Amino acid sequence: MTSGNLLVAQGGGPTAVFNFSLLGVVEEAKRLKSKGIGKIIGALRSIDGLLDEDLIDLGKESQSNLRQVAMNPGAALGSCRRRMAEEDYGQILEVFRKYDVRYFFYIGGNGSMYTVHKVDQLARSVGYVLNAVGIPKTIDNDLAFTDHCPGFGSAARYFASVTREIGLDVASLPPPVSVIETLGRNTGWLAASASLANDGEGDAPNLIYFPERVFSLSRFLSDVSDVYDKWGRAVIVVSEGLKDKTGQYLGGVNAKASKDGFGRNLPGGASSYLAAKIAEKLKLRARSEKPGLAARTGVEYVSSVDRKEAYLVGQSAVRAAVNGKSGVMMTLERAAGNRYHCSIGEAPLEKVAKAEKLLPASFINKKGNYVTEAFLRYCRPILGDTIRKFPDLSKHLLTFAARGK
Amino acid sequence: MTSGNLLVAQGGGPTAVFNFSLLGVVEEAKRLKSKGIGKIIGALRSIDGLLDEDLIDLGKESQSNLRQVAMNPGAALGSCRRRMAEEDYGQILEVFRKYDVRYFFYIGGNGSMYTVHKVDQLARSVGYVLNAVGIPKTIDNDLAFTDHCPGFGSAARYFASVTREIGLDVASLPPPVSVIETLGRNTGWLAASASLANDGEGDAPNLIYFPERVFSLSRFLSDVSDVYDKWGRAVIVVSEGLKDKTGQYLGGVNAKASKDGFGRNLPGGASSYLAAKIAEKLKLRARSEKPGLAARTGVEYVSSVDRKEAYLVGQSAVRAAVNGKSGVMMTLERAAGNRYHCSIGEAPLEKVAKAEKLLPASFINKKGNYVTEAFLRYCRPILGDTIRKFPDLSKHLLTFAARGK
Repeated sequence: MTSGNLLVAQGGGPTAVFNFSLLGVVEEAKRLKSKGIGKIIGALRSIDGLLDEDLIDLGKESQSNLRQVAMNPGAALGSCRRRMAEEDYGQILEVFRKYDVRYFFYIGGNGSMYTVHKVDQLARSVGYVLNAVGIPKTIDNDLAFTDHCPGFGSAARYFASVTREIGLDVASLPPPVSVIETLGRNTGWLAASASLANDGEGDAPNLIYFPERVFSLSRFLSDVSDVYDKWGRAVIVVSEGLKDKTGQYLGGVNAKASKDGFGRNLPGGASSYLAAKIAEKLKLRARSEKPGLAARTGVEYVSSVDRKEAYLVGQSAVRAAVNGKSGVMMTLERAAGNRYHCSIGEAPLEKVAKAEKLLPASFINKKGNYVTEAFLRYCRPILGDTIRKFPDLSKHLLTFAARGK
Repeated sequence: MTSGNLLVAQGGGPTAVFNFSLLGVVEEAKRLKSKGIGKIIGALRSIDGLLDEDLIDLGKESQSNLRQVAMNPGAALGSCRRRMAEEDYGQILEVFRKYDVRYFFYIGGNGSMYTVHKVDQLARSVGYVLNAVGIPKTIDNDLAFTDHCPGFGSAARYFASVTREIGLDVASLPPPVSVIETLGRNTGWLAASASLANDGEGDAPNLIYFPERVFSLSRFLSDVSDVYDKWGRAVIVVSEGLKDKTGQYLGGVNAKASKDGFGRNLPGGASSYLAAKIAEKLKLRARSEKPGLAARTGVEYVSSVDRKEAYLVGQSAVRAAVNGKSGVMMTLERAAGNRYHCSIGEAPLEKVAKAEKLLPASFINKKGNYVTEAFLRYCRPILGDTIRKFPDLSKHLLTFAARGK
């Protein structure tokens, strides 16, 4: 049994259930106080704050406030997109030594998992006793070795719900084309999730495009034209990460000017670019919607399953660490069979950090413009309760009787 | 007392409470059956369907289904953006004659009110007994002679809520700038409504820009720079209708290619254009969010006050018509005093159709980059219940005790 303090931090982009994993860590740590866990320390602003020793005592937060904050979008502790330098890892260990941190939990995506891995390795190499465990978080669902990733289900529920709502709007008012842009820089999981809006032939979305396929404008326009000819309207979902055959993001404006914290070009603009192309080439009125951050902050659209699982991975990470585990990330393992159930597993951090899980070929149709049944089966339970349905008017035929009859 | 059938239609862009006004009409018409109202007819696809005699018997819809459909986004009957030709008005009257329509209710904005006005005038001139009443509907809140317009409160609540949520995301993860684009082609009411997100100094939104003011990029960049220097982040709300001094919409892509049903250029793209400018000129990472149609379909963000008032204007229109009124639009009249209350009034359709209510100068600050207290007082009650607050962690200082103490 390792005795010492616990430190938890949140890394990378927030999800709608980011803070539920934090809650899981803190509540389980309180339950396991007798197992050797001392103070429950939160690092503000992630690794940035950790290195600045900008630390708070989460053990002193009231239960009721913690539970309320768990419902917040954003990262309650603050996050960062630090470009880690080699000396940073040693520096982290220095802070751990100073504050006697023996349990380290980092809630994040690939980059964060790599940080935990490096710190774990360094601690081992210098003989510093540390139990470092990664807690998965990403809306993009691109982490490998886990059936899916906490954060994804709520963003997926958002896109499915909003696509259905927009579908009703578009169906009721011609002209008729809306291009909805989803988050998901390198993977099409969130674009695919909008398919859960579709409740019958002709329903929104009619077409979905994924960054896993090279984008062809001519095929796209031909697809849109076909849908329009058949239904008189089209709701099209595109990933922000769509690239043409030269590897450039669609929609030049943002791509040229914006770089992320790592100096990489940022996507964004595919939807307005494609709406303009539809207007220009097909002479159809088209508009674009790009909810952007709203899709990862929409507290009204949180998946109940996602919230529960976000808590569970946080809670399980503490249990695993107390049982001596280090250098692993908690995973969700789906049970076989029809009834949805996930149990907790673990994967080596080194492997997780290096992998990026793309949408598999079996989840994309042959034309590359929609999902398959297999994807629907995979994704549906992760969205939680059935998404809201909107009944239609019965539309009784008017049987006209002349006046006075 | 006029005896005959009733016809109701929905015109223009949907709102989140469009169908609540329809419900108000149908339920009140059923209540007033004894006053001479015969069949309750719905025109599908608005004037397009009316002229095609694509009509349904709303009197046969079950109460429970009608009440459910009332919660739908979109237009339950279908809508249109028809360019009315002069002969269309006569054609409408022919359909009315054929189906013995003596009560006509059109739920819509300026354009729809003009249609009701013309049909009312024509009926009078040929001696056809018709009671035609307009029911106000627009998210843009640009209808004159009414304190505000049903549909606005819910879209306003959407932008206030989403801006607050995005504010939390941006505060928790640097780099730090988000530009949120609101609907509102010619008026800044919806951009202004995002101010209700702000709960204290430094909170999102930090800056708001309105189409009522000519946009200056240099002043904008200087404002953003000031906010960033002070708070280390900035959430900026811009109307989709922002124009530069030459009268062009900001953000070229959509403006060039897209035209609406009336052949006018469409706005859209201000946010991505400005995010790119912030990145380019201020060297700050900036992103843009453009919820677009999601803002008028978001059923989770409907204002309870808006829903109630949408019903009320529909209900009151039937009462007014049964009492012999024609050629008027129902209005909301706010009572003086601190407690919010609106009663129903009416305004002549001719005047309503010609007017466009801009955000008054008293609601925009001197710098043209935020609202005034007067706007907040005006807008707050229309949003319904207080918008969701997100408490912060208490952030107790860590008092460090060395190991074993």
